[in-house]
Amino acid sequence: MILVVALNPALDVTHYVDRADWAGVNRPARVHARPGGKGVNVARVLHALGAEVLLAGLTGGHTGNELRSALRSRGVPAVFAAIAGPTRRTFTVVDGGRGDTALFSEPGPHVSAAEQDAFLALYADALPRSSAVVLSGSLPPGLPAGMYASLIAAAASAGVPALLDTSGEALLLGAAAGPAIVKPNLPELTAVTGGALPRNGVHDQAAVAAVAAAAAELRRRGAGAVVVTLGADGLLAVTGEGTWLARPPAVTGNPTGAGDAAAAALARGLASASPWPDRVAQAAALGAAAVAAPAAGDFAAADFARALAGVRVCRLGEQ
Amino acid sequence: MILVVALNPALDVTHYVDRADWAGVNRPARVHARPGGKGVNVARVLHALGAEVLLAGLTGGHTGNELRSALRSRGVPAVFAAIAGPTRRTFTVVDGGRGDTALFSEPGPHVSAAEQDAFLALYADALPRSSAVVLSGSLPPGLPAGMYASLIAAAASAGVPALLDTSGEALLLGAAAGPAIVKPNLPELTAVTGGALPRNGVHDQAAVAAVAAAAAELRRRGAGAVVVTLGADGLLAVTGEGTWLARPPAVTGNPTGAGDAAAAALARGLASASPWPDRVAQAAALGAAAVAAPAAGDFAAADFARALAGVRVCRLGEQ
Repeated sequence: MILVVALNPALDVTHYVDRADWAGVNRPARVHARPGGKGVNVARVLHALGAEVLLAGLTGGHTGNELRSALRSRGVPAVFAAIAGPTRRTFTVVDGGRGDTALFSEPGPHVSAAEQDAFLALYADALPRSSAVVLSGSLPPGLPAGMYASLIAAAASAGVPALLDTSGEALLLGAAAGPAIVKPNLPELTAVTGGALPRNGVHDQAAVAAVAAAAAELRRRGAGAVVVTLGADGLLAVTGEGTWLARPPAVTGNPTGAGDAAAAALARGLASASPWPDRVAQAAALGAAAVAAPAAGDFAAADFARALAGVRVCRLGEQ
Repeated sequence: MILVVALNPALDVTHYVDRADWAGVNRPARVHARPGGKGVNVARVLHALGAEVLLAGLTGGHTGNELRSALRSRGVPAVFAAIAGPTRRTFTVVDGGRGDTALFSEPGPHVSAAEQDAFLALYADALPRSSAVVLSGSLPPGLPAGMYASLIAAAASAGVPALLDTSGEALLLGAAAGPAIVKPNLPELTAVTGGALPRNGVHDQAAVAAVAAAAAELRRRGAGAVVVTLGADGLLAVTGEGTWLARPPAVTGNPTGAGDAAAAALARGLASASPWPDRVAQAAALGAAAVAAPAAGDFAAADFARALAGVRVCRLGEQ
């Protein structure tokens, strides 16, 4: 079983409008509400892949009730510690006329020390049944920046490898706790390693070398492997066994959730100890399939198969 | 007791942002969720005025649960018939940087014939205890356009006067059922009576006469009195006892909910059979106080007192 942690999940509400009036009244043609947040997206993708998954997180309030019942109706196994604060919403306005998407992301609810303890008990209970742990997304207010580091240490004590997908101080502290994989995107990697990283795509050897050097820096800080997602350019995996670059075929669509789909594929590879070339191919292809799907956490099996057939994996020499 | 009907209430979610990026990611500085929709606003204003009020409506789903518990925590007495569809949300983005406000209003849930009957039973039960009825807002899908006309007829049978605040066909059919007052705003009046109404304020005698003529047309269709809200220009009441124009002092703020505050004042006047000059003064002043308050359904007592001291009521001669 793959254990996916969602400490700051969200109820994602999307309004589809023809041409938004940003200073007036709009009547959306369609409205969707679905469970969201990075951890929830990873769990949904794993569930859709047929993997045995358990989502573990924190929920509260009426939005928390709505989130849990939406997960139940989608058949995603989940356990939650209850918190007093209400689960946050995100609001997305998709302007079909202009082709723009605006996201409004509410701050998370405050989590108390007692609520944190209740989650830790639930996590400790699930660890012995887990083959891998995914720690994904931001930390809500009240939780310490070292929360993921603690969860990685607990997993290590239970012999369970961890994948960490977060940013900032939580990423740096988490990497030092020795997760099997950290999966930053390029801006997240830049933010924690400093230096000038390529901002206009990773196309040439010099750009790839710069990203690989920054990833190697995160490995030195304690991560077993660093997989950097590069958007349409695919991903770069810097591991103890070598460095791989995976380029998916070109797709158009909504990039939100593509990183979560790649994390899900990497977690599945981690749980089954599959070889790195397979892992990065699956991760790049699943990310591309997620771009082609209209909503985060969704993908079509046919898009995945097509992307997997078209993905190119290169092993890079020593930098 | 004043019975206020809310057939299509909403959970109003407001995000306050500094400068919205309509094609990117926004993190609102503040988030508010509150019970909304015109009927709910009227009931909240009446409750704040100290009037005995009962809100009666339809709610469903998790948003319905959130709406009901928010009303409970505000102490507004309410009864609801349960519907299978989820209560709608509205989503407002207040862009403090630009001074713009964008509203995204979800369509209401579909109401079945059985759910309609359940509401009618609840309404019939409350009528004998009511001194006035307020019918306010849009009808959700599934309810007939004549729904308000039926509720007005039922109130009349029980000897209870009704105030109707809606638009389009529901307003025309409702007016024909003989409510004591209909309260359109100027665009709503124009839409149902046709003709060219003044669009740039109602400042001169000719403009006032045109509005009064259109209001008189709605009286001929069956309404006892027609009170037209004119935004910053106040309101015009065309009644069987005479025509009055009430001008509030100038205020700045958010006009959303000002019409609902005016409707609440008119309903209170209707329930206590107060004289028309008092009613229109109270309605214009309460509307102005609502503009000064940041959120629909709110007002400060001091703003109300100040506006009431500054309101000017003129009785107009026969047109």
